[in-house]
Amino acid sequence: MAASGSEFDLIARYFTRPAPPGTLGVGDDCALFAVDPECVLATSTDLLIEGVHFFSDVDPVGLGHKSLAVNLSDLAAMGARPLGCLLGLALPSVSESWLSAFAKGFHALADTSGCPLLGGDTTRSLAGHTISVTVFGQVPVATALRRAAARPGDDIWLTGTLGAPDIALRILQGRLSADPTVLQATRPFLDRPQPPLAFAAELPGKAHAALDISDGLLQDLGHILKASECGARLVYQCLPVHPSLSTLPEPVVRQAVLSGGDVYQLCFTAAPAQAASLLALARRYGVQLTRVGCITPEPGLVIEYNGQIMPWSGPGGFDHFSASATGAVPLPSP
Amino acid sequence: MAASGSEFDLIARYFTRPAPPGTLGVGDDCALFAVDPECVLATSTDLLIEGVHFFSDVDPVGLGHKSLAVNLSDLAAMGARPLGCLLGLALPSVSESWLSAFAKGFHALADTSGCPLLGGDTTRSLAGHTISVTVFGQVPVATALRRAAARPGDDIWLTGTLGAPDIALRILQGRLSADPTVLQATRPFLDRPQPPLAFAAELPGKAHAALDISDGLLQDLGHILKASECGARLVYQCLPVHPSLSTLPEPVVRQAVLSGGDVYQLCFTAAPAQAASLLALARRYGVQLTRVGCITPEPGLVIEYNGQIMPWSGPGGFDHFSASATGAVPLPSP
Repeated sequence: MAASGSEFDLIARYFTRPAPPGTLGVGDDCALFAVDPECVLATSTDLLIEGVHFFSDVDPVGLGHKSLAVNLSDLAAMGARPLGCLLGLALPSVSESWLSAFAKGFHALADTSGCPLLGGDTTRSLAGHTISVTVFGQVPVATALRRAAARPGDDIWLTGTLGAPDIALRILQGRLSADPTVLQATRPFLDRPQPPLAFAAELPGKAHAALDISDGLLQDLGHILKASECGARLVYQCLPVHPSLSTLPEPVVRQAVLSGGDVYQLCFTAAPAQAASLLALARRYGVQLTRVGCITPEPGLVIEYNGQIMPWSGPGGFDHFSASATGAVPLPSP
Repeated sequence: MAASGSEFDLIARYFTRPAPPGTLGVGDDCALFAVDPECVLATSTDLLIEGVHFFSDVDPVGLGHKSLAVNLSDLAAMGARPLGCLLGLALPSVSESWLSAFAKGFHALADTSGCPLLGGDTTRSLAGHTISVTVFGQVPVATALRRAAARPGDDIWLTGTLGAPDIALRILQGRLSADPTVLQATRPFLDRPQPPLAFAAELPGKAHAALDISDGLLQDLGHILKASECGARLVYQCLPVHPSLSTLPEPVVRQAVLSGGDVYQLCFTAAPAQAASLLALARRYGVQLTRVGCITPEPGLVIEYNGQIMPWSGPGGFDHFSASATGAVPLPSP
């Protein structure tokens, strides 16, 4: 612990809040909290490194939001309800304005998602900011959404839209030129992801497998297929492309939609009989929900695109359109 | 997630192990595990930053051990039994020999302490290694060892010895010259702390308040006194000074013993009637246990030293011997 006395005071001012109901030991060596006896604990941790995961000049309010959001997204992917979180911060210097803004963004999302900050660690760093967040939630063990739970015949569903964060990132990195309105429209999806937490917590019992699309649709869906020992067929035209991408070249859009990461939305599978119930649930929570394909018994991920089949070559990429593509199997229309 | 495919494989090779009994979801977006319905969850997180918390050339086996040990120490300070942990690693490059050695040290302590690695996050860093560990344990809520639970009349107990890690650190930093045998004898206490986990998990119901001495005896005991709204009287001659410090100048030893941190041992308080039971428990677990003072109703921390009273001036330091010292109140002999 390298902070001096006055730094402790500053950190305490921005991060210490009254212990929320149900928590039992904030401020001790450990945080203590109760877990519903009918549930198991779900937990996940993510590191965000300056220069790797965020720009040095990023708005600290947005960074506070995002550092919690990317972790809440992992809870959503299990169908878990948030219980609380821990925050580790390594800071090159203690800036009151930075801490105040970061804490504002962090606590705002913690409040709206029912995931109070219960404790953590603050220390000095030699180079750049490092943020470590650990989240806890609870989920009934029998119905937790696991990667290995997809079944042949399941529909594949997506919440939200695809492509916007990847396009914003590429513009900001100077790897893509686009009209300024494109950055304006896509950047909130990069800086302020909004995982569909309340909707996700209703999925256990209705959905089978789920995960978030933090590494890109094809790579992440590949994790479900590998764990579930099955395949999938996606219909490209069904994918919920963010509308602000409509002015971009088609290959740029396709790359962003299929392989662009940082989408803290859910990809999940469910029996076709659940479709009406899922769509009603999405309406209730104001979540955009799209059926984009189905799980197949034969292994492999196949993408239908304008009546052709584009085989997927593995994590991180996809082949050119296969010359040997055979007739596409039509999906039930969503 | 900035690791490439082959890096994922390497990381998986060293950190993925079969899911231990009682855990339910290793490898998913979250780790899932059950908590005893009679208990609450205890959790803590610590960041270790290269150049701040460890030397760049530190033995990675020891670093793997220590990064888990400092977190287990927080569980011990609540009297919690370990359930599992998460590991976040930010690496400037992927070195197979470093990962292999780090994992060896980490898993060895995880195995002996019953705290299996359940998940985590691995990413690239731009400068140096960053290690983030989060531990989980469980403890009966009514008897968890809290800082605020000390009562006037309680004995104050310490496990282990004091001073060795601070002396090793000062020698390694070039701030202290000493015979090479001193470094040899003290360095294991800096590099491989051994929190008394099994002993600590038996303390709920027997002890009242507890914490570890990671920031130094006086500062940490001060946290108990502030939270419990009481004072303490320590007898310097009773403190368990590590024997290898015997050749060092007395002021150096006193500083190390009273204010030296990195001691992942427990300071706890308990009713005098528990003394025989606590000493028997310590014998059973092979833990050195020393009674060093008592909790007083009047606020303030007083140290008896050669029959004089040395008042403590606050966190991080202690005054010279008070000229106005009045007669010392003798402690019951431990």
